[in-house]
Amino acid sequence: MNMRESVTERFRTLQDHICLNLENFDGSGRFQEDLWQREGGGGGRTRIILGGDCIEKGGVNFSAVHGNLPDKIAAALQLPSSAFYATGVSIVLHPHNPLVPIIHMNVRYFETDPVAGKGEKTWWFGGGIDLTPHYIIEDQATFFHQSLKTTCDHHDPAFYPKFKKWADDYFYINHRKETRGIGGIFFDRLNEETSSLSADKLADFVMELGYAFAPIYLHIAGKNRHLPFSAQQKEWQNVRRGRYVEFNLVYDKGTKFGLETDGRIESILMSLPQNAQWFYNYQVSEGSPEAHTQALLKKEIDWISLS
Amino acid sequence: MNMRESVTERFRTLQDHICLNLENFDGSGRFQEDLWQREGGGGGRTRIILGGDCIEKGGVNFSAVHGNLPDKIAAALQLPSSAFYATGVSIVLHPHNPLVPIIHMNVRYFETDPVAGKGEKTWWFGGGIDLTPHYIIEDQATFFHQSLKTTCDHHDPAFYPKFKKWADDYFYINHRKETRGIGGIFFDRLNEETSSLSADKLADFVMELGYAFAPIYLHIAGKNRHLPFSAQQKEWQNVRRGRYVEFNLVYDKGTKFGLETDGRIESILMSLPQNAQWFYNYQVSEGSPEAHTQALLKKEIDWISLS
Repeated sequence: MNMRESVTERFRTLQDHICLNLENFDGSGRFQEDLWQREGGGGGRTRIILGGDCIEKGGVNFSAVHGNLPDKIAAALQLPSSAFYATGVSIVLHPHNPLVPIIHMNVRYFETDPVAGKGEKTWWFGGGIDLTPHYIIEDQATFFHQSLKTTCDHHDPAFYPKFKKWADDYFYINHRKETRGIGGIFFDRLNEETSSLSADKLADFVMELGYAFAPIYLHIAGKNRHLPFSAQQKEWQNVRRGRYVEFNLVYDKGTKFGLETDGRIESILMSLPQNAQWFYNYQVSEGSPEAHTQALLKKEIDWISLS
Repeated sequence: MNMRESVTERFRTLQDHICLNLENFDGSGRFQEDLWQREGGGGGRTRIILGGDCIEKGGVNFSAVHGNLPDKIAAALQLPSSAFYATGVSIVLHPHNPLVPIIHMNVRYFETDPVAGKGEKTWWFGGGIDLTPHYIIEDQATFFHQSLKTTCDHHDPAFYPKFKKWADDYFYINHRKETRGIGGIFFDRLNEETSSLSADKLADFVMELGYAFAPIYLHIAGKNRHLPFSAQQKEWQNVRRGRYVEFNLVYDKGTKFGLETDGRIESILMSLPQNAQWFYNYQVSEGSPEAHTQALLKKEIDWISLS
């Protein structure tokens, strides 16, 4: 089995694992599955959970698509060939309770066909996981980052610091001059040229990260899911969700790639929350929990040493 | 007074006129004014109306900014100079009642400085007005388009057909394969080279359009503002507002220009509704009023002959 096939199979199994664990955790929510095929080649398995006990709206999507990239995109990615194969798992979960964070993970493998005279295929892994608390709770932020660091350190101690910074820069809402949340890790074009690891070892890293997702999120979501919350906290959640919408539609490269390559819209935009709000010139009250969170939406915070 | 000064002054007066008429119409809503200055030069007069009797959230913004465009943008606009002056009035109104449409208008004037050896200044007018009914009502759509055509025809009979098509193409949510609403008119880079009119006559056209805004919208909004509506109609309104958010954040050139040139964020994003919703794979019921509207969200409808 070549890399393309083995990674695809492992991502499919990862999707099953995460869906099972989320259903067990949620208690009442069940994933509905939509299988889809892409006109240009390949397809996916979109799994959506709606109206659960903890999760209001979420998606755990697997896809494996292939075909020819539009020339503009192939050029932007500096690819030797426009014939590509891409597989991955993408997750966004929006909880009901504003005291429980939104989470996102994506792990992906990308490959072009080899081109005669231009050598071997081009390939890489990419991925990221980031947490968007409506209310930042320091010890949970520390737990989140420490867990990611531990996972990274099993493979290369250089990964966490590098990928943490990358996430700070990537999950940034430039027009708001604020981060989307507390970041996490982000990496792209990871292969034998850009890292110290072999292809097989990189696949192992990405898979370990994928399998770390459920235990990390369920630990955090389990803490506050049953806490009571106020209408004001719900309003603030909707404001933060509005910023999430802004990030995804204005900056997110995966969303842009999907929209520009005629991806399946409902699978791409499952990342958007069920409700979002925009108030003109919304201001947090001085000294409030909302102001506390707002002040922490910035880059270069050492979350591990914070609490 | 040169063109730059006279147009600026006329836009400022237009803003006053529209705000006054909207307040009189709404009855209880009052505009709050925020004056702002732009670091790179110029500033604006943002006027926001919130929680009115008819209008839930709206903005009628005037701005006149100048400075140097980022090279990337100057190149994309094929400008001889990056030193620019831009003034305009931008409006978006979101009503409470789902039976009343969202409306948008923008009128603007853009000028670069003359460059030694490259001849005169570059200048143009741009603008657009489009209607986004949550529920399309044919005779109101006809009235809207007929009113725009009448305004255009006072200046050049070629304008309406050309600008109506331009609006169909511009106000299009490509990833949804649907128009934002029933369109209207859109034009850009309108000057003596691209039209049959002189600079003064073009200014008159743009001003007549600006002064047509209030009577046109108030006629339409006045029809249904007091009609009762259901929770289901409110939900559909929120879905349509979600699409409005998608258009503005993914496609709208004014929004992009504002975000990329460090414009005043709260003035730019006043266009977003107070509430929006995204449901996974939302489907309208066959034969429903929502399905009727959905079926009309397409280009090339001759709204004037429709009813």
